[in-house]
Amino acid sequence: MIKIAVDLKGADRPQEQLAAGVLDAVRDNADLFVYAFGDRAVLEDVLGGNDRIELIDSPETMTNDEDPAEAFRTKKESSIVKAMQLGKEDSGIQAFVSCGPTGAIFVSAMMLLGRIARISPILLVELEKQDGTPFCVADCGANVDCRPEKLVDFAKMGMAYMKAVGVESPRIGLLSNGAEDRKGSAVVKRANELLRESGLPFDGNVEGSGLFTCASDVIVCDGFSGNVLLKTIEGSAKTVISQMRELGADRELCDRLYARYDFNTRGGAVLLGTKLPIVKGHGAATALTVRNIIGSACRLASGGINEKIRAAFETQ
Amino acid sequence: MIKIAVDLKGADRPQEQLAAGVLDAVRDNADLFVYAFGDRAVLEDVLGGNDRIELIDSPETMTNDEDPAEAFRTKKESSIVKAMQLGKEDSGIQAFVSCGPTGAIFVSAMMLLGRIARISPILLVELEKQDGTPFCVADCGANVDCRPEKLVDFAKMGMAYMKAVGVESPRIGLLSNGAEDRKGSAVVKRANELLRESGLPFDGNVEGSGLFTCASDVIVCDGFSGNVLLKTIEGSAKTVISQMRELGADRELCDRLYARYDFNTRGGAVLLGTKLPIVKGHGAATALTVRNIIGSACRLASGGINEKIRAAFETQ
Repeated sequence: MIKIAVDLKGADRPQEQLAAGVLDAVRDNADLFVYAFGDRAVLEDVLGGNDRIELIDSPETMTNDEDPAEAFRTKKESSIVKAMQLGKEDSGIQAFVSCGPTGAIFVSAMMLLGRIARISPILLVELEKQDGTPFCVADCGANVDCRPEKLVDFAKMGMAYMKAVGVESPRIGLLSNGAEDRKGSAVVKRANELLRESGLPFDGNVEGSGLFTCASDVIVCDGFSGNVLLKTIEGSAKTVISQMRELGADRELCDRLYARYDFNTRGGAVLLGTKLPIVKGHGAATALTVRNIIGSACRLASGGINEKIRAAFETQ
Repeated sequence: MIKIAVDLKGADRPQEQLAAGVLDAVRDNADLFVYAFGDRAVLEDVLGGNDRIELIDSPETMTNDEDPAEAFRTKKESSIVKAMQLGKEDSGIQAFVSCGPTGAIFVSAMMLLGRIARISPILLVELEKQDGTPFCVADCGANVDCRPEKLVDFAKMGMAYMKAVGVESPRIGLLSNGAEDRKGSAVVKRANELLRESGLPFDGNVEGSGLFTCASDVIVCDGFSGNVLLKTIEGSAKTVISQMRELGADRELCDRLYARYDFNTRGGAVLLGTKLPIVKGHGAATALTVRNIIGSACRLASGGINEKIRAAFETQ
């Protein structure tokens, strides 16, 4: 049985709408048990009476408008704090899912769950290459300024992730402004040397133009560049598809392609490095988003993501 | 009369092929005079006998495989050095165009032409928003690591560029990992403060997802982020268009859109900040590229780009 904690509060849509995604996820996977965090009175109607869903009443809500540390300190009855608290105990919870405020999730996870092996947690996003195979970008925003050594840690977490989702021998590429080893900012040039020395399967630098066609499965970068990268892909893809529509391309075809680049309703970003993996959906999530991100969390839990991260850092 | 120096050597294709683009450019613009640098014996057939083209024999060629500083020191008879030398003298040359090695162009320009007002030159690229209006990214690779103060200089150069190409009151956006002022790397957060204090028309931070739809005409960033941004746009657009083709979209429609994102044959990058503006075409340039980049150089010269940059830095 895979046990996942699902926070249904703090997103743009009301919790009872998002709750429909939990029902779908439980139907998708006969091996799944969900602890659902929200207002019991509101959710009972949708989720009550299912023996693979346990409702946990969480009267308080964390929002994007408040200071995350202050919210953590004062809102002990919030869905995020209550879920992390249960995750910390001997409950068998293997992953946490939320579409609530990232800052509050991050702070609560650091305070209640703690980190694996003192590494800096990252925000990882999985994307598709041109041929449909998966790759990931690590980090996408948790570590905006970082030392070169951190990028080697990000490479290891990215590899653990790709292994957990079924890529047997993932390879690493380092995001840079040129393919040659001597190209890059001071941090990137040093990270290139460290990755060369690390013994990890390192392909060298990857440019923005090669992301979708290169051989690397993990694109390593600092959180600033990764965030710019991710949002630029999204912005470019949506712009091209809309221009295609204007030029007269078939609407249905454009819609199908658009869905591939609509990161809001897809798998979500994964916070890796705290003692439970956390799949974070967009604040504009729908019930489908919730269903998809619970699916991602199940896949990561079944793939033994945390054991793989621990193993990567223990062999240092 | 607009006088442009055109270097025809050091690209992938032979100079006599690229020279056809010079003839087209001269036909495009009755006000244009070109100094063409290459092997006279080879170019005479194509360019000889035109009273608006002067051939200047340049037996040596700079390549991408050599150290730029060393090439500058030893190849005084190269097309790049000879063109810059003439540009430095009282020849009336207003811009320089080349598809040769960027490093050698950069070093030669710094040594022979020198900088305007001690600013750090940038590589600027003009792109199109979703609605077809122009915007530019500054810097796209000349300054990989830079202090926050530099980003204010990049904003001024970007504004001078947009004014030269006809945008009356260009506005500035700062590339960041979030729209709020408090988002960004340490350098970007400080640059945000400096731009707020500068009195320049600053819109605040712009995310990768908003590039093609935001109100800003100049996207300011360091050369590392700018290069990643530019190449990611190119890679994403080409990937989406190729997926569209696979899904069955009309070939002709896809080709038209592809040409919009094929930065190799479009206008080229502009090196701004040395005493002559330099339009740099891709090494894989065709005669059409040469025609286009000479057109860009004419537009910048007519728009008084250098006077505008000087004015921006003199009013400091």
